Amino acid sequence: MVRHYETLTVESVRVFLEQHDTLVNRLGSRSETWTVREVSDGNLNLVFLVQGPEGSVCVKQSLPHVRVDPQWRMPLDRTAFEAEWLRRVELTAPGCVPVFLLFDPVMFVLVMECLEGFVTFRQALGEGADAVGPSRMIGGFVARTAFFSSLPGRTLEEIMPNVSFFANNTTLMRITFDLVLSDPFYSHHRNHWLKELDQEVAVLQSDEAIARAMIRLQQRFLTCPQALLHGDLHSGSVMVRNGDVRVIDGEFSLYGPIGFDCGLYLANLVLAWAAARSGGRRAHLAEAMDVFWSGFRKDFLSLWQTHASGGDLFSEVTFSVYPSLLEAERERYIDGIFHDMTEFAAAEIVRRLIGYAQVADFDWLTGTVERADRQREALVFAGHLLREAPGSMAEFVGRLTG
Amino acid sequence: MVRHYETLTVESVRVFLEQHDTLVNRLGSRSETWTVREVSDGNLNLVFLVQGPEGSVCVKQSLPHVRVDPQWRMPLDRTAFEAEWLRRVELTAPGCVPVFLLFDPVMFVLVMECLEGFVTFRQALGEGADAVGPSRMIGGFVARTAFFSSLPGRTLEEIMPNVSFFANNTTLMRITFDLVLSDPFYSHHRNHWLKELDQEVAVLQSDEAIARAMIRLQQRFLTCPQALLHGDLHSGSVMVRNGDVRVIDGEFSLYGPIGFDCGLYLANLVLAWAAARSGGRRAHLAEAMDVFWSGFRKDFLSLWQTHASGGDLFSEVTFSVYPSLLEAERERYIDGIFHDMTEFAAAEIVRRLIGYAQVADFDWLTGTVERADRQREALVFAGHLLREAPGSMAEFVGRLTG
Repeated sequence: MVRHYETLTVESVRVFLEQHDTLVNRLGSRSETWTVREVSDGNLNLVFLVQGPEGSVCVKQSLPHVRVDPQWRMPLDRTAFEAEWLRRVELTAPGCVPVFLLFDPVMFVLVMECLEGFVTFRQALGEGADAVGPSRMIGGFVARTAFFSSLPGRTLEEIMPNVSFFANNTTLMRITFDLVLSDPFYSHHRNHWLKELDQEVAVLQSDEAIARAMIRLQQRFLTCPQALLHGDLHSGSVMVRNGDVRVIDGEFSLYGPIGFDCGLYLANLVLAWAAARSGGRRAHLAEAMDVFWSGFRKDFLSLWQTHASGGDLFSEVTFSVYPSLLEAERERYIDGIFHDMTEFAAAEIVRRLIGYAQVADFDWLTGTVERADRQREALVFAGHLLREAPGSMAEFVGRLTG
Repeated sequence: MVRHYETLTVESVRVFLEQHDTLVNRLGSRSETWTVREVSDGNLNLVFLVQGPEGSVCVKQSLPHVRVDPQWRMPLDRTAFEAEWLRRVELTAPGCVPVFLLFDPVMFVLVMECLEGFVTFRQALGEGADAVGPSRMIGGFVARTAFFSSLPGRTLEEIMPNVSFFANNTTLMRITFDLVLSDPFYSHHRNHWLKELDQEVAVLQSDEAIARAMIRLQQRFLTCPQALLHGDLHSGSVMVRNGDVRVIDGEFSLYGPIGFDCGLYLANLVLAWAAARSGGRRAHLAEAMDVFWSGFRKDFLSLWQTHASGGDLFSEVTFSVYPSLLEAERERYIDGIFHDMTEFAAAEIVRRLIGYAQVADFDWLTGTVERADRQREALVFAGHLLREAPGSMAEFVGRLTG
């Protein structure tokens, strides 16, 4: 039987899963007893949750087009990158991602643990949930996945095959390059915004210092493969349940600058801050930003101290006679990540306010004027970040909270 | 018939070539009439030149070990990278490399045009041949190959599959990383030098500013895939005959910083300068350095002006409202290549004087004291480059001839 790609339905998901004993065992009993729900709500894929008497699974399949725009054709291979990302990350950051169960390279179907009872961190943020705990965990998650996929932590023989593999994820690289790092910074038909922001957008799109920063960021994104990134680490890619946190949706994974992952996460805290319902809530979110960065920094440096002999860069063998220099250079490396982070955060803030794919954080503000006021705060803050990089997290938060 | 790898001999080369009609046609007549000469003289491979009544070919085969050190085992795949490099480069810099004829992925045999009557540029330099003409041509060659394999000149969809392919050339990446960028900068058993240089070597290997530069260069080499590089562009990888120039031996090819290719070429001019037989010859070589860099710079910028719409970075679409900024940022990009070039040149000078694989330029100096004096000049110059980057080619040459 020649198998070929076809789009799954609530019925054919059942047939697909039946063919795999390990999945049948996990779900339990006969397939007629399973309940299947389609819960697709991202922009790109079909997602089904399947519940059996013994357990549940999550089934994700690439569509040959953008889910919300069938005219926008797209290759199917993105699920393959997500599967490979998942398998690598569950080794270096165990417990931080759903358990990988199966990848079918013909159907482009990824089956993984179903995160029962979890909600997106974005939704939780909107409902006033704790932001500090998850931010500390994500700081550690980014530190671990970055360190163990980068040359400070590994040899070139370990890293380069991964660089090679993920360099082929060009479809989603293109989306990020266009939607995050290009379109919002010039006049492009995919952009849209509240008319109250016309003036700020005009300023943003005609500022030479901002353009200079974007020229730099575009280069960093495409020609600085420091580590394996998630590539789309916004608050909708993080799932939370009480104290538990999981990172999902690694289809944008690529080798790139570590500050890109940090920046996307941070930006979405800033957006939540701008949309927050109270001053107290804003203070809580500002604390989460600080905790995220200081947690990342602490964990990355600590991994570096305990695994210094594992990597080719900053080698303690080659540079054994310069211990204090090595320490200073490690700090400088982290400072470089900080600089990248603040600028990528700015790009993400801008694109989520005036670009193609915006965020739901502001939806509760039914009055356009107030919504525009809140968005303006974030937009002006982002412009300032790009014009003039802050030197520390204290300065970053200080600018925000005035 | 299952084919498998076996090392070619003068006899079996004939049998190998007979199987390919296009090669038989090129050589002419029957294989008994061909003459086969083994001319292997690099460190890594077997090379045969085959002459028939109608024409000639060059046959290059990987050995499973370093040719000059059979204990140093090595994978065979390097010829595959050379073949792919050759096929790409002959499209973007036609006439600058030998014509590609055949690659056999089982035997790891590459067959190409035989460069009859050519000698290595290193040999020609030693014999007092013109250095300015070839340097101008190599400047243009590096500009063309770099521009058309990089994101200023091409889209990410065009570039990333190449980044992916060449990221697998880890065997030769490791050799460069160790022999050029690591070993010479600390106490390593592969290093060796004239005892007259003991003091300079001790200074070089205990200077914090030099170590800082090497930490930076190691990062640039492994995590800055700007363009497809030759990867070993010393004067033994350039062949000359009267005004003709060809670049050979692309087995070290990789995506990396453009300044690496520039730096290796420049370093070998500096070594020739240090070993030169007269003051007039030194002036000629200093002129060649200047011509190389200004030629590279001019050609790269000129390609950028005429092909600006082809690439994803520094886009004239995205940044159309900032023409003078774009021009300034292009200059800044070239300045970055210059900075990389001078530091990589320094590393190459050092490793050719105190590292594993040294150069023949100084062999004509039979007196050890004079040879050491000449080498000391180059070594001190290289240390200065690493401690304090020159701001221009005039400053670079000025320090040398100062």
